[in-house]
Amino acid sequence: MTRADGRTNDELRPVTITRNWLDHAAGSVLVEFGRTRVLCAASANEGVPRWRKGSGLGWVTAEYAMLPASTNTRSDRESVKGRIGGRTHEISRLVGRSLRAVIDYQALGENTIVLDCDVLQADGGTRTAAITGAYVALADACAHLKGIGALKGEPLTGSVAAISVGIIDGEPRLDLPYEEDVRAETDMNVVMTGDGAYVEVQGTAEGAPFDRKMLDSLLTLAEKGCVDLTRMQREALAG
Amino acid sequence: MTRADGRTNDELRPVTITRNWLDHAAGSVLVEFGRTRVLCAASANEGVPRWRKGSGLGWVTAEYAMLPASTNTRSDRESVKGRIGGRTHEISRLVGRSLRAVIDYQALGENTIVLDCDVLQADGGTRTAAITGAYVALADACAHLKGIGALKGEPLTGSVAAISVGIIDGEPRLDLPYEEDVRAETDMNVVMTGDGAYVEVQGTAEGAPFDRKMLDSLLTLAEKGCVDLTRMQREALAG
Amino acid sequence: MTRADGRTNDELRPVTITRNWLDHAAGSVLVEFGRTRVLCAASANEGVPRWRKGSGLGWVTAEYAMLPASTNTRSDRESVKGRIGGRTHEISRLVGRSLRAVIDYQALGENTIVLDCDVLQADGGTRTAAITGAYVALADACAHLKGIGALKGEPLTGSVAAISVGIIDGEPRLDLPYEEDVRAETDMNVVMTGDGAYVEVQGTAEGAPFDRKMLDSLLTLAEKGCVDLTRMQREALAG
Amino acid sequence: MTRADGRTNDELRPVTITRNWLDHAAGSVLVEFGRTRVLCAASANEGVPRWRKGSGLGWVTAEYAMLPASTNTRSDRESVKGRIGGRTHEISRLVGRSLRAVIDYQALGENTIVLDCDVLQADGGTRTAAITGAYVALADACAHLKGIGALKGEPLTGSVAAISVGIIDGEPRLDLPYEEDVRAETDMNVVMTGDGAYVEVQGTAEGAPFDRKMLDSLLTLAEKGCVDLTRMQREALAG
Amino acid sequence: MTRADGRTNDELRPVTITRNWLDHAAGSVLVEFGRTRVLCAASANEGVPRWRKGSGLGWVTAEYAMLPASTNTRSDRESVKGRIGGRTHEISRLVGRSLRAVIDYQALGENTIVLDCDVLQADGGTRTAAITGAYVALADACAHLKGIGALKGEPLTGSVAAISVGIIDGEPRLDLPYEEDVRAETDMNVVMTGDGAYVEVQGTAEGAPFDRKMLDSLLTLAEKGCVDLTRMQREALAG
Amino acid sequence: MTRADGRTNDELRPVTITRNWLDHAAGSVLVEFGRTRVLCAASANEGVPRWRKGSGLGWVTAEYAMLPASTNTRSDRESVKGRIGGRTHEISRLVGRSLRAVIDYQALGENTIVLDCDVLQADGGTRTAAITGAYVALADACAHLKGIGALKGEPLTGSVAAISVGIIDGEPRLDLPYEEDVRAETDMNVVMTGDGAYVEVQGTAEGAPFDRKMLDSLLTLAEKGCVDLTRMQREALAG
Repeated sequence: MTRADGRTNDELRPVTITRNWLDHAAGSVLVEFGRTRVLCAASANEGVPRWRKGSGLGWVTAEYAMLPASTNTRSDRESVKGRIGGRTHEISRLVGRSLRAVIDYQALGENTIVLDCDVLQADGGTRTAAITGAYVALADACAHLKGIGALKGEPLTGSVAAISVGIIDGEPRLDLPYEEDVRAETDMNVVMTGDGAYVEVQGTAEGAPFDRKMLDSLLTLAEKGCVDLTRMQREALAG
Repeated sequence: MTRADGRTNDELRPVTITRNWLDHAAGSVLVEFGRTRVLCAASANEGVPRWRKGSGLGWVTAEYAMLPASTNTRSDRESVKGRIGGRTHEISRLVGRSLRAVIDYQALGENTIVLDCDVLQADGGTRTAAITGAYVALADACAHLKGIGALKGEPLTGSVAAISVGIIDGEPRLDLPYEEDVRAETDMNVVMTGDGAYVEVQGTAEGAPFDRKMLDSLLTLAEKGCVDLTRMQREALAG
Repeated sequence: MTRADGRTNDELRPVTITRNWLDHAAGSVLVEFGRTRVLCAASANEGVPRWRKGSGLGWVTAEYAMLPASTNTRSDRESVKGRIGGRTHEISRLVGRSLRAVIDYQALGENTIVLDCDVLQADGGTRTAAITGAYVALADACAHLKGIGALKGEPLTGSVAAISVGIIDGEPRLDLPYEEDVRAETDMNVVMTGDGAYVEVQGTAEGAPFDRKMLDSLLTLAEKGCVDLTRMQREALAG
Repeated sequence: MTRADGRTNDELRPVTITRNWLDHAAGSVLVEFGRTRVLCAASANEGVPRWRKGSGLGWVTAEYAMLPASTNTRSDRESVKGRIGGRTHEISRLVGRSLRAVIDYQALGENTIVLDCDVLQADGGTRTAAITGAYVALADACAHLKGIGALKGEPLTGSVAAISVGIIDGEPRLDLPYEEDVRAETDMNVVMTGDGAYVEVQGTAEGAPFDRKMLDSLLTLAEKGCVDLTRMQREALAG
Repeated sequence: MTRADGRTNDELRPVTITRNWLDHAAGSVLVEFGRTRVLCAASANEGVPRWRKGSGLGWVTAEYAMLPASTNTRSDRESVKGRIGGRTHEISRLVGRSLRAVIDYQALGENTIVLDCDVLQADGGTRTAAITGAYVALADACAHLKGIGALKGEPLTGSVAAISVGIIDGEPRLDLPYEEDVRAETDMNVVMTGDGAYVEVQGTAEGAPFDRKMLDSLLTLAEKGCVDLTRMQREALAG
Repeated sequence: MTRADGRTNDELRPVTITRNWLDHAAGSVLVEFGRTRVLCAASANEGVPRWRKGSGLGWVTAEYAMLPASTNTRSDRESVKGRIGGRTHEISRLVGRSLRAVIDYQALGENTIVLDCDVLQADGGTRTAAITGAYVALADACAHLKGIGALKGEPLTGSVAAISVGIIDGEPRLDLPYEEDVRAETDMNVVMTGDGAYVEVQGTAEGAPFDRKMLDSLLTLAEKGCVDLTRMQREALAG
């Protein structure tokens, strides 16, 4: 059984990572996982939130959002509704936690980096594309801060990438586009560091609950995806 | 190395499940995991949300919240702040998804059950206590609906329970109270059905990222906890 | 004519006052007026609101809320609606004013005590139960502050209790449960100090306006209820 | 001891009731109690809120608000803050309840009258001026509805007026301006019908709690004020 | 072709400017353009917004709002809706900008003047009446500040007035009431200083787009209206 | 005196109009005016807002927003603040009005087209770029609706484009980038149809008020800019 887009089960969609997509931001990346397109912008500022002042430690946070026209059917603008939905909140928190896993706050000093991940077009895997792209924007922002002498050391302790995996018709598949995502019995997002450790594992049974063996096969598949993405991140940053 | 409360690493805190704690609700449970105390109330109503009308299918949803005085330091009331925080949203969604994993919407018919999980006292593991207690309240609400002839069949396809596990000082431990939770390097919440399948796995590296072996040991430990909780749920419902 | 629950017209429902219901709060009381059940928690903190800083005076305030499942029919959560209703606001203000009537701000010093009154189950008289229970939690919080040497004197100048009275079928009745409350032609809440003075009188004609004689009989009945409640508060605090 | 404005203790401030102050509204009144100036506008519309549809019964409701510049020190606009304060809510509810006390919903038929009471200038007693003026606007709106044949009968079962009383330096006084209001030991608002029955009694000890005798003297004084206001309302409507 | 109210095309409605309509505000004006009636109150306070502190410069800002009953059909209260509409925002900004055009911030010193323009009755041209009246209130507030020695110089560099013009049935008309406004093909608001320079020009094609010649004729007509209003402002301030 | 970017005073920045930038939307355009970059997406749906149902007429509306990282200094997200700012509201309304000026509602039938204009990068002139790009996306959406047989005729009655002009150092200049915009004494946005008529003229004196002669020269300059943009729109749609 082959996939609609001709990929094998353990193959990523075409991934592109375009750095410096914006002129103002300290780091900015347009990341594409197939038709999913996320603009990741890193803004760096002196100073930290009030609860951290005087600690000598930096801070990294993230905000994720979708443009109204990014989805198949236009969705209402959260600024117009006057409140952020649960899914948006949840993904913003996930992206922030994932990036903080590779940050040395001491080396960052009392600087704050905000990662804005705005989904321009959504076709499944927006949160994993956001994390993967945001890491590259974060690296550029750190380089920028280093360039202007604002750091006490190297704030990056490693790299981080993320991928979705899922079970479709009983088979584990890598990097689900929207049409697979809605059919998946189980859906898992895995965030890993560049040296192969787990930062976050979030698996959800959408249909029938899954057993330990299936969980193991999904983790193995995700690991392969993260290894591939880590290489692409490295190449993009070298480019 | 022993734990502050004298438990072994694979031992739950004392768990109590008190049914019918309220007089009005279709099902209500006061669940305690040690000092963590959550009031779970199931309200059952005819009818479903608009997007589901005419489908013949039911709906189950959940809302999680903490009383201001439930924590060590009083926290501001979300109704006063005028918006629900990201953590609240995230847990409400998790509780709802977990319960829906054991619901047959067809059998439920066009009825809606809302599970309100209000944390009266928080000492770690509030979301897992909420899921574990809410299942019992849900079962009572289903029985209530059956009793008044409002169902088309048996809406429960199984039971569901949840537990937290974490790594403290390099060792996997079961059911973390607050003082262990803040020290955990890795924190995982696992939701399982009564017959041992996974509904949800959420693991987060709070400190250093974790490797596959550690992940495996956490999953094994969580499974043991869920087996114990499933037994207690069964006993409570039989009582 | 007798009441549905067998009480005489000037008889309170069974009242229980359980102190120290929570482990964290400076004072906490589960108060029950029949099936009405309110959790009153007093949190004490150093410091006062900005407008009072440097005055040497303390502050006491209160927030009242109902759990969604506390009523016969589940009510929407105010945090989800994003705004507090008029009734909630009104009762929070009433509880705060009532407690402040027996506080010596000078003796309290620049400390703030917040009383959270959360209705776990509602069967009429929730605001009067809240005031009556909150006073006991406040007394415990003051004792706690005294114990840690945070006070300049005795902040309590007396005790305070509250009861509802109403006219049903032309007869004045004490302490109305829900089923009487909805039928009452006139509804009055009276807050009194332990030595028999009025702190607050709020009478409302729900049906026909009432005359001075009826008003007098309601005041006399309420006074009897407050005397009984004052005795129970004293016993609870002595216990 | 005389009052700053030369009045005796049982004397109202100069009261003016100007009808038809607006061109559009079904009824509109500019009411003045001394320097307190409230614009009361009654809008009448066919139809009732959803929960009342098909009942054959009408509805009357009120909204109270203060213009930012109405007070000595400009207060922030509630529309800009994005939420209505507790005091505003409370008074809106009081005005609505007071007017509904003299309405026959059956005679009103399925029509809704909204009373907007906007305080243009505040100098104490704004809520009592609002009720007193709103009654006259309501009467005009009812006459308007009768004129266009929209009623089933006479919706007004009586008239309603309100006044504040308080204890200053141990003496009961009628109709407190701001400078007396802030000094009052006890503050009471009384709403009465034109034939001398109570609709609402709200007394609050701002300083020391008050005894039954003082309460009685305040009630007597308020009754006198309401009798005077009822006469002025009648004259205005006759004019 | 004559206008419904008998005016010629280049004639203003009867304009009245009543100063000191309120007792508290530093300046207050009830301005009427025909049936349009706007209460403009200027509140003056020491200090400036945070972003301007220490600059030695003052600040002037404005808030525009409509009372619910000011329009033909009652409109919902923005404070109740919890958010300010786009039109309100837009006009508040326009009024503020217009007044700031004649302010010397240096001479004002670190004082803030807030202009509250509340529409009591709306019959077209509310924003132009608001600007015209607010200027007079602003002048009174400046005089008040001068009187108490709070200024460093004369903050007013000129006067400002505003008028609406529009094209009805192909003809340019001055100062449109509501019934003309809704029929206008083109609608323009013009704000001018007392010495005939433009502060703001806002023209909108409501129906067919308009050509340059029509635009020119509207500008000429508006200039005449502003000259007339400037004279009336001067007379009011001299009075 | 030449401009920083070497342009003459009546020269546009390099303009690019990229159609079909998104895969889902009925029409989508990435429009660039120099470094200003706006994504315009047109979503077409059957049905109209409630107040227009059954009229046989269509509706066109717009929402404008800026990504947080689009500006030099990151701005807070309006969805996080929970309310839309005045400037956002104002521009959304302007874009909607401008597009509706060239729509035949009858021909559109009961369909709604929403134009989302999201500023990805801001360097002055974002509202004029938004209008210019949104028109092209609107044209594509109309073509799409025609293609699926959803229209009753040709809904476009013409084209629309917009440009900013301003006075810098006493000279009129076309299409201001951010660095010129902040220095402009007068700032004007002009919206014109393809056949040279005005849809909207908004001129504001940022510094000194401007005279009629300056206003005339700005209008002439803007006309030239709109002619150029109209040609580029036509070429883009022909491409």
